[in-house]
Amino acid sequence: MSSFLSKRFISTTQRAMSQLPKAKSLIYSSHDQDVSKILKVHTYQPKGSAESSILLKTLAFPINPSDINQLEGVYPSKPEKVLDYSTEKPSAIAGNKGLFEVVSLPSGVKNLKAGDRVIPLQANFGTWSTYRTCESENDLIKIEGVDLYTAATIAVNGCTAYQMVNDYIEWDPSGNDWLVQNAGTSSVSKIVTQIAKDKGIKTLSVVRDRDNFDEVAENLEKKYGATKVISESQNGEREFGNEVLPKILGPNAQVKLALNSVGGKSCTNIARKLSPNGLMLTYGGMSKQPVTLPTGLFIFNSIRSHGFWVTANSKRDPENKRKTVDAVVKLYRDGKIISPKEDIRTLEWDVNNLSDEGVLDLVNRGIATKGAKNMVVLKW
Amino acid sequence: MSSFLSKRFISTTQRAMSQLPKAKSLIYSSHDQDVSKILKVHTYQPKGSAESSILLKTLAFPINPSDINQLEGVYPSKPEKVLDYSTEKPSAIAGNKGLFEVVSLPSGVKNLKAGDRVIPLQANFGTWSTYRTCESENDLIKIEGVDLYTAATIAVNGCTAYQMVNDYIEWDPSGNDWLVQNAGTSSVSKIVTQIAKDKGIKTLSVVRDRDNFDEVAENLEKKYGATKVISESQNGEREFGNEVLPKILGPNAQVKLALNSVGGKSCTNIARKLSPNGLMLTYGGMSKQPVTLPTGLFIFNSIRSHGFWVTANSKRDPENKRKTVDAVVKLYRDGKIISPKEDIRTLEWDVNNLSDEGVLDLVNRGIATKGAKNMVVLKW
Repeated sequence: MSSFLSKRFISTTQRAMSQLPKAKSLIYSSHDQDVSKILKVHTYQPKGSAESSILLKTLAFPINPSDINQLEGVYPSKPEKVLDYSTEKPSAIAGNKGLFEVVSLPSGVKNLKAGDRVIPLQANFGTWSTYRTCESENDLIKIEGVDLYTAATIAVNGCTAYQMVNDYIEWDPSGNDWLVQNAGTSSVSKIVTQIAKDKGIKTLSVVRDRDNFDEVAENLEKKYGATKVISESQNGEREFGNEVLPKILGPNAQVKLALNSVGGKSCTNIARKLSPNGLMLTYGGMSKQPVTLPTGLFIFNSIRSHGFWVTANSKRDPENKRKTVDAVVKLYRDGKIISPKEDIRTLEWDVNNLSDEGVLDLVNRGIATKGAKNMVVLKW
Repeated sequence: MSSFLSKRFISTTQRAMSQLPKAKSLIYSSHDQDVSKILKVHTYQPKGSAESSILLKTLAFPINPSDINQLEGVYPSKPEKVLDYSTEKPSAIAGNKGLFEVVSLPSGVKNLKAGDRVIPLQANFGTWSTYRTCESENDLIKIEGVDLYTAATIAVNGCTAYQMVNDYIEWDPSGNDWLVQNAGTSSVSKIVTQIAKDKGIKTLSVVRDRDNFDEVAENLEKKYGATKVISESQNGEREFGNEVLPKILGPNAQVKLALNSVGGKSCTNIARKLSPNGLMLTYGGMSKQPVTLPTGLFIFNSIRSHGFWVTANSKRDPENKRKTVDAVVKLYRDGKIISPKEDIRTLEWDVNNLSDEGVLDLVNRGIATKGAKNMVVLKW
């Protein structure tokens, strides 16, 4: 269908107001903790025309916890609900991130051509859909030379990891600089590890206690380049902190950054490992426990505790978002970061064959396993 | 005795190596949670001479929680234990803050004269004593034109309040800028309130629930200039936060700073009142509960949580400490800050008549009421 559409729309740019192909989107008009109650598959004729809008067909979209929180109505960033999709009630299309292919584009567009792969510059784009349109090429970032899994996740995971490592700390390349992070096996943590290694920064990664701890630790150390992997038990042990850790870190170590996506005791314990004036960045709260830090760490160790949200950063500084994506793409291309492909569960949406019920079922399967790394890949 | 000593030492500066008067100090050589076990009254001949050292006689010293924590051995900043006081074991003199009068001074001292009132520039000076000596005028700050209670507390309370209000936030004088603080009746909070008022910054002060809440609130508002005083119950109520607080703050309010000396729920609830990008400074932890902040405040509201410790600031930047003291002294002199006198419990140490047991008893009475505002005033 791709080539049919491409031909159709590119060949009609001289004529007036060619209709766009019908789109199928996962939409919602209200919120509920039970997302299956509000999410619907909806087919409609997109507004606009091939002469006025960039037409994008969707190649893949991840199902991120933030997408689900948005459907639940508990996420602070959300798309406006509109009447653009031939619905009765104002509605929004689900999904923030995804990878698209440019199908056709108005004559004024300068830096894109049909067949280019692009991701949205900002959140709330509405990516859970077969087709989307876009009014300005400035809202898109072109991605070249990386696989589909990398490209579709780069806007969240890659950018989060890159900006946290690069935008807050003045690193000293002498080899004594460390960062500590919890959730050491998460997608973001793995990218952090690889970016840090490339910069000569050592990483102490904390992972949950598990039967195959040794295997997981070895994988993170050998494959991803983590300097040292420890368990949450070790993270919390006073003796480990006083006796063992100093030997791991070395005499001149500076633990300048702690990356927290867990909260609760886990973050208390990584913050304790910071050197004076160290910074903790919180970018997630998987344990649903708050960030709890002893008063003395603030007063006597002068640690600082901040938040990190790539969505807000991108909104505040779109130019830096573009630069970040380019830098991360380069790291993937140079082999410094491994494709996330093997960690991702692929849910295939056969656009020409899957029924509406099938699509809904597919997406709900992704939603059901919140923590897992699910990606819907569209087969055209 | 003051005039006798002044005459004796000033008149002898031409002669060689005049002996200094005997000093009586509260000293310790070890630490214990029960401070009465380790604190001793000790009389000795100070090292040095009137020709080499600035001789100071003590006028007053506050008994601060940090002094007690130091004796307990749980405070990160501590004086070196030395053999300078004719003791068997290396010992330190208790006390960090105090007000002294210059008795005599070597000929090279430029900016001080006998009779001047001075405070130590840095912590760990050892102030719980009748006399102290000092090798360099650079270790002292001259204080003029404020009463004894103000002068003896300015280095902790006044400087803490001044630097927290002035050194972290870019305030907008339009009248919409707020700070929120817990422990609204504390010495530091009262000074914060007055300094903020003088700068046109509005203050929301949280005080513990109490029977005479209305009276306390009225006093803070009318006498000290707090814009609004609320109780800890109100601080924690969701409805109050959503319905009542916006009316108090006004439509364009920016709550830029939260000052926390309590921890636990109290700090969670003042942090919730911060505007996006707001800063919480923690400078105490009276509740002994850690600083607990919801993950979402960091990620979505991008609040920042830092510590404040005047001791570390003074060490890092002594020049700023001098400037701060000068600025606070000016505010007191200009009537912008009320003397803390009425809040302070005076413990009188009659230097010529009180026995060693009496001195120890006096100081232990101050130590026993940790939270209270005790000051030992020496009667010469």
